[in-house]
Amino acid sequence: MNDLNPVIALLGRRLRLAVIGGGPGSFIGPIHRMAARLDDRYDIVAGVLSSDPQRSVAAGLAMGLAPDRCHPDLATLLAAESQRPDGIDAVAIMTPNDGHFPAAMAALDHGFDVICDKPMTNTLAEAQTLWEKVQASGRVFCLTHNYSGYPMVRQARAMVADGQLGDIRLVQVEYVQGGRAKPGPGRVAWKADPARGGPSLVMGDIGTHAHQLLRFISGLEVGEVAAELGCVVPEREAHDFAGVLLRMAGGARGSFWVTQAAAGVENGLRIRVSGSRGTIEWQQEHPQVLDFKPLDAPAQRLTPRGPGALPLALRGTRVAAGHPEGFPEAFANLYSDAAEAIAARRAGQSPDPLALHFPNAHDGWMGMRFVDAVIRSAQAGGAWTPA
Amino acid sequence: MNDLNPVIALLGRRLRLAVIGGGPGSFIGPIHRMAARLDDRYDIVAGVLSSDPQRSVAAGLAMGLAPDRCHPDLATLLAAESQRPDGIDAVAIMTPNDGHFPAAMAALDHGFDVICDKPMTNTLAEAQTLWEKVQASGRVFCLTHNYSGYPMVRQARAMVADGQLGDIRLVQVEYVQGGRAKPGPGRVAWKADPARGGPSLVMGDIGTHAHQLLRFISGLEVGEVAAELGCVVPEREAHDFAGVLLRMAGGARGSFWVTQAAAGVENGLRIRVSGSRGTIEWQQEHPQVLDFKPLDAPAQRLTPRGPGALPLALRGTRVAAGHPEGFPEAFANLYSDAAEAIAARRAGQSPDPLALHFPNAHDGWMGMRFVDAVIRSAQAGGAWTPA
Amino acid sequence: MNDLNPVIALLGRRLRLAVIGGGPGSFIGPIHRMAARLDDRYDIVAGVLSSDPQRSVAAGLAMGLAPDRCHPDLATLLAAESQRPDGIDAVAIMTPNDGHFPAAMAALDHGFDVICDKPMTNTLAEAQTLWEKVQASGRVFCLTHNYSGYPMVRQARAMVADGQLGDIRLVQVEYVQGGRAKPGPGRVAWKADPARGGPSLVMGDIGTHAHQLLRFISGLEVGEVAAELGCVVPEREAHDFAGVLLRMAGGARGSFWVTQAAAGVENGLRIRVSGSRGTIEWQQEHPQVLDFKPLDAPAQRLTPRGPGALPLALRGTRVAAGHPEGFPEAFANLYSDAAEAIAARRAGQSPDPLALHFPNAHDGWMGMRFVDAVIRSAQAGGAWTPA
Amino acid sequence: MNDLNPVIALLGRRLRLAVIGGGPGSFIGPIHRMAARLDDRYDIVAGVLSSDPQRSVAAGLAMGLAPDRCHPDLATLLAAESQRPDGIDAVAIMTPNDGHFPAAMAALDHGFDVICDKPMTNTLAEAQTLWEKVQASGRVFCLTHNYSGYPMVRQARAMVADGQLGDIRLVQVEYVQGGRAKPGPGRVAWKADPARGGPSLVMGDIGTHAHQLLRFISGLEVGEVAAELGCVVPEREAHDFAGVLLRMAGGARGSFWVTQAAAGVENGLRIRVSGSRGTIEWQQEHPQVLDFKPLDAPAQRLTPRGPGALPLALRGTRVAAGHPEGFPEAFANLYSDAAEAIAARRAGQSPDPLALHFPNAHDGWMGMRFVDAVIRSAQAGGAWTPA
Repeated sequence: MNDLNPVIALLGRRLRLAVIGGGPGSFIGPIHRMAARLDDRYDIVAGVLSSDPQRSVAAGLAMGLAPDRCHPDLATLLAAESQRPDGIDAVAIMTPNDGHFPAAMAALDHGFDVICDKPMTNTLAEAQTLWEKVQASGRVFCLTHNYSGYPMVRQARAMVADGQLGDIRLVQVEYVQGGRAKPGPGRVAWKADPARGGPSLVMGDIGTHAHQLLRFISGLEVGEVAAELGCVVPEREAHDFAGVLLRMAGGARGSFWVTQAAAGVENGLRIRVSGSRGTIEWQQEHPQVLDFKPLDAPAQRLTPRGPGALPLALRGTRVAAGHPEGFPEAFANLYSDAAEAIAARRAGQSPDPLALHFPNAHDGWMGMRFVDAVIRSAQAGGAWTPA
Repeated sequence: MNDLNPVIALLGRRLRLAVIGGGPGSFIGPIHRMAARLDDRYDIVAGVLSSDPQRSVAAGLAMGLAPDRCHPDLATLLAAESQRPDGIDAVAIMTPNDGHFPAAMAALDHGFDVICDKPMTNTLAEAQTLWEKVQASGRVFCLTHNYSGYPMVRQARAMVADGQLGDIRLVQVEYVQGGRAKPGPGRVAWKADPARGGPSLVMGDIGTHAHQLLRFISGLEVGEVAAELGCVVPEREAHDFAGVLLRMAGGARGSFWVTQAAAGVENGLRIRVSGSRGTIEWQQEHPQVLDFKPLDAPAQRLTPRGPGALPLALRGTRVAAGHPEGFPEAFANLYSDAAEAIAARRAGQSPDPLALHFPNAHDGWMGMRFVDAVIRSAQAGGAWTPA
Repeated sequence: MNDLNPVIALLGRRLRLAVIGGGPGSFIGPIHRMAARLDDRYDIVAGVLSSDPQRSVAAGLAMGLAPDRCHPDLATLLAAESQRPDGIDAVAIMTPNDGHFPAAMAALDHGFDVICDKPMTNTLAEAQTLWEKVQASGRVFCLTHNYSGYPMVRQARAMVADGQLGDIRLVQVEYVQGGRAKPGPGRVAWKADPARGGPSLVMGDIGTHAHQLLRFISGLEVGEVAAELGCVVPEREAHDFAGVLLRMAGGARGSFWVTQAAAGVENGLRIRVSGSRGTIEWQQEHPQVLDFKPLDAPAQRLTPRGPGALPLALRGTRVAAGHPEGFPEAFANLYSDAAEAIAARRAGQSPDPLALHFPNAHDGWMGMRFVDAVIRSAQAGGAWTPA
Repeated sequence: MNDLNPVIALLGRRLRLAVIGGGPGSFIGPIHRMAARLDDRYDIVAGVLSSDPQRSVAAGLAMGLAPDRCHPDLATLLAAESQRPDGIDAVAIMTPNDGHFPAAMAALDHGFDVICDKPMTNTLAEAQTLWEKVQASGRVFCLTHNYSGYPMVRQARAMVADGQLGDIRLVQVEYVQGGRAKPGPGRVAWKADPARGGPSLVMGDIGTHAHQLLRFISGLEVGEVAAELGCVVPEREAHDFAGVLLRMAGGARGSFWVTQAAAGVENGLRIRVSGSRGTIEWQQEHPQVLDFKPLDAPAQRLTPRGPGALPLALRGTRVAAGHPEGFPEAFANLYSDAAEAIAARRAGQSPDPLALHFPNAHDGWMGMRFVDAVIRSAQAGGAWTPA
């Protein structure tokens, strides 16, 4: 019966998690908490829900945390939880972008495993520092590039790794949203402030997702970029689109296009990867389908539990074939895999290798390298720039 | 901050839930438990996970229940939990079909609120008895016809109720699966045994879902049916298809088709409802889209958080527009609405009327009336039979 | 170079065709004429374009017919064309329904091959008479159930015949339109007049199409029907919907649903056929795709020139893979196949067997038998009735 | 009855057309001839079907041309047809690319109207010369960028022109095929030979289509490009992909991606145009649907004859709503519009302005300017280059 709950099977209990950020009004906070709960591998036991100490405590109580674990700030939480015999195992960070780096560094300093929202940091230097810190710490670091959690994205990755597409020759990724189609800085003020949101709004918000998705599926790194960045909506200064030509390491060529200014579009993340033996296509708004177009054989529509599903896809599904899972389940796949890694570390065991496909600090560093290269190329009039 | 968790806001704690059935090997058990966890309105604190007492206790422990709340059988659970100061508020029943009626009756006898899997009972008489019992008890009874929980199904219901389709004239529902396309009785033995699974396999398994979906969206009851029931797969005795012509109360006409013998099909539940002002179409395998084809205006693709979404749909979504939710979230919508109803009852308050759209014991009774009428019509050579 | 034009290759010229009906204001007339022209196998040289002799001649001139071949009525045309050395080979009949039978009989009497719109006749007796007449005549008779001309419909037929679906067990066809959703008799007056349009508006207009499609793909005949016919739109007497349960010869079971009262729907003809080895699904509004869901293998999306296309599909395509063909090309496939049959007959040769899949007088007779059985079953309260 | 055939209404006869190229083995030849026939506005009366005089004559005879109008070469055809009282009105050119320019120049010299396949020429200088020649001649010149003929592409153009999208801000076009995914030069040898196929295989073959589609819908010209061109398939020298970042005149930004090396993809031409008031999306493989996503209103699926269809779309449809038309009909729309323009010119009348949306020599010149700019940018390492 160990498969009922692999964490309890290993540790005799769930992992104890603290949440940092994500309080009232946050879009991503509730999703992190759902993701932590869905597979029952964590108890959320402590939190700092706001940068305002009073609001933080009030929100923790409203969520059902014990009063003595509703902390006013991160330093207090880390200190207090380090002391408790029933203290936390891990922290999940979902603050505004500028809070990721200091919170993650501090949590690692206290020996906790870390789950962190993206972009990992606001600067390339921070990213490198954090990635080095994670390596030195031996702790688990899970970066919630949640699109990597969708079963059919994992299927795509596994098919490429398995050679079903042959040599990869062409990659195409687009992430098109309409949330910033109206003039003005947008609903969430900190995002458009470079000091808090990072150097490029559209690249930090969704460009890093598109980049990670591309790497995750293709198994390839970006070699060089030729880019343009800018804004097309009036009364705005932050970037609302980016176009990038890609030279992938190994010779594949590609196209990258992200924008948040496409009025009326919801969340159009789409990818196509072509190899010598076929092409795969996936779009986030219908995540249960992976179109596979093999060279010289009929096109296939693969599904998470359908024929042809590979182990990496299957382990990310919970329901029978034909019963859609969505964004929260994809997000939860990252949490649940990270839980297996954390529990294994604590138990002194090796986790299932299939549990280790969640994005990590190295991926976060690669993401910041890409953002940096895109910015530099755009500043250089689109000159080819190593990523 | 009350919207962070309306149950905690009302009661100062989560509801305490016991699960009956759904142990190792069950498909539906993990889904019930995910649904209970997703919105953090329940703590699963007790359970009877198997009809085998030893397996029941072992499974409870593997799920992390306290040892003294891993009960060997239902009677023990109900007695013990009734005595505890921190005893359960409600039970969730997910046993084989023949266990629903006795478990629900006993739970109501002990004063607990009830969440119950479908079909509500195996006989029409039981269904009527249970529906009367629920009325007498004053307790909340939620029947998990989970397709009623999808945001766009709720949108459809709200649009019909709002008159956006005008007078309803035509209804069409089909539920086509391939899980029983291979010869033989199937993977889950009790389902094909009428004593345990009910009088008609396909009608109990999926026909009741299709019937409930039709009523839920159209707001209409079935008046008369002309039906055929049978099996088309060799080496089988249980029904694997049902075709029904429908005369709806009020004059609309319709078609109903369900089967589990369509080789290769996953979970094809599809509905179309036409009124004097337009038609809506929804299919479960792409649940985020509701196609609305108004008379004399362009066809619309409505989405859960997109323009035109009505309050009943909006309250069943958790994520921003374009981020799909799936089957587990739809299931969780029933649990979360039931939680609001239970918490309000316990707090002596009126719940939000929008929380009361989950299927209940009356719906379960109507479902069994429909199954009964279909069987009688088929036995009478397709004669029109009141439902 | 014979494949440039197989009719010219055989006869040294195109076939000479007269059109009967389809003049100004007709929907179907222009389609017949496009279908005749598309593959350059006919010259339209004569016509009776209207039941009004003056309008007939004027329309013929406006279409570019020679003045002496713009005939005032059918009898004149048949007599005159029989006399000319360059007289017609064939007639194409596209009058209101009540004109099909007399025109076809007269044309056969004069020895002409016949292309005729559907429904073939308005009564079962006429259908039988015409079918017998065709057999006796040795002439080609092509009934323009044009959906049989779509490449992927032909692919479906060929796959079933090839055994790729195994034993057929379940069939489902629906034809849902919205053209008669508004109260009143409709735009085309003769259609709602039983004396001219036939005994059941919806069955003649689209029910015969659905029936033919079902037979064409499944290769099965309808054995018995249990049916309801009626109208759901106010201020109407003609049937605007029909629901039929089907017992196919050989044991398959099925569902049939047609209506023209679904407000906002355009031309929703959809079919699903399931056998022991898989299921195929096709919908007319995206005719270039045939979904094939094999048992235990990934679902396939077949296309007209894609991998897996069978010869019967390939011969009905004109353009490279991925370049859609539509309704006019499907219609033209019937004309072009009929042309090959006519040319072969005239040349005293055997046509390519793949040219002989166009619907014929036997299919027309089976269609009228089905309509008749549906009407009788509905009148008998849905009693099972042999078709 | 003039709408039965507007050319006959104006001239009392069809236009007389000669075809240049497109003989046995040609993909595009049969399509041109179908397009000319479909709406009955042309008689194809003469031709040069091959560069081999004997093959040319044989093919003409096999197509049913009169023996004295099966010409051995272009010069003979132009001379002979110029002399005949019943000589041709126009020529349609569908030779390999290097034949377009000399044939078009010669035909204009003889006073004929011209229909010409794309790319218009192989060099920018030729394109400018031809465009000037056309202006000087007063003749009609129709360039068969056939995707401009699809009804929903015309709908998109009309919606943009009508302001329904507001100010255009973002454009995205991709044209992805798999026909050259296998190593080697490909099936049609002349295409990979720069002297015959032009300086860039992928840009000439499909890049010019994507560019024209973008201009046609958006109403905007490309201002500057930053491009990469190359080949990703082994054993190849010709370009099989191109990626271009776009700065449109007026400030919109965009992405352009074309390839013929995406194994398994059929004919994936897709466009998205976003303005301040909404976004439209169209894909060639489902050409009957135009997705319109307005800012703050439900997404619409527009269809050729459905509600919201504008006159420019409606005039390009032949069949009732829901009956798909395809690639041949789109192609025929160019021919039929050109016929109206030619007939009006000959009759000394003004054509319907809606007939004048076919691509012309100016569009051809703009296409060659774009190809030239892309090549120069790519050679300059992606530097921004005026188009």
